[in-house]
Amino acid sequence: MPDTFSSPLDLEIAFYESFERRDLRTMMSLWADDERTYCVHPAGHCMNGLAEIHAGWEGLFQHMPAMHVHIQDRKIVQAPGLAIHHVTEMVYLDSDESQQHWVSATNVFILTEHGWRLLAHHATPLLTGNVDSPVLH
Amino acid sequence: MPDTFSSPLDLEIAFYESFERRDLRTMMSLWADDERTYCVHPAGHCMNGLAEIHAGWEGLFQHMPAMHVHIQDRKIVQAPGLAIHHVTEMVYLDSDESQQHWVSATNVFILTEHGWRLLAHHATPLLTGNVDSPVLH
Repeated sequence: MPDTFSSPLDLEIAFYESFERRDLRTMMSLWADDERTYCVHPAGHCMNGLAEIHAGWEGLFQHMPAMHVHIQDRKIVQAPGLAIHHVTEMVYLDSDESQQHWVSATNVFILTEHGWRLLAHHATPLLTGNVDSPVLH
Repeated sequence: MPDTFSSPLDLEIAFYESFERRDLRTMMSLWADDERTYCVHPAGHCMNGLAEIHAGWEGLFQHMPAMHVHIQDRKIVQAPGLAIHHVTEMVYLDSDESQQHWVSATNVFILTEHGWRLLAHHATPLLTGNVDSPVLH
């Protein structure tokens, strides 16, 4: 039986802890049973629905090195039953703490009969510099 | 005086029209005057707040080629005063319609005293294939 989270923040903390532990069972218990769930990983893969999201995390956890995530900044937008956290993640590998990577993530939380659950995680590796190159907006 | 939009969908349509026209003035009129606004472009640049968002679109519109966006899929999550649209954009250049690019975007809308406004646009170019490479989740 998954835990019940009384706030989006409690759930978000559990999300990053399950990522650091590469704990697939706990990770999947945090997601809403909702056909609109989606997860966009920084490499550009978009998983839609729990089956694809499960397969995505399973693949990552099997291959990714041990790493830690520190949330450097968090902006919160909340409405009844729905919350959005925009966070800046500082990610570093256990094997080389001097190599820090920055990720901008949009985390979406929805209130269900089981408490708050994750509806979406959309993560993008951050670049620095000018934004005047002809990218696809 | 910016238009007033009675629904997030009406605003989203205006957002993509202003992008295709590279209409900076209309684009900026769609955003909420809110310190939590942010825009993540596919290249990995994150603009926080209206000043950075304005500079980001100004730079893009000055350099990007003419292109069109077709929304191929849209999933909607809505609560009182807050809405999230997860869309799949098919983007192609006027100069080469055979070159199609796919983007997964999270668009966040907030209801203000001026009607619905854009709070966030988070876009990621989509890749295909396996998701088992050791990326930073």
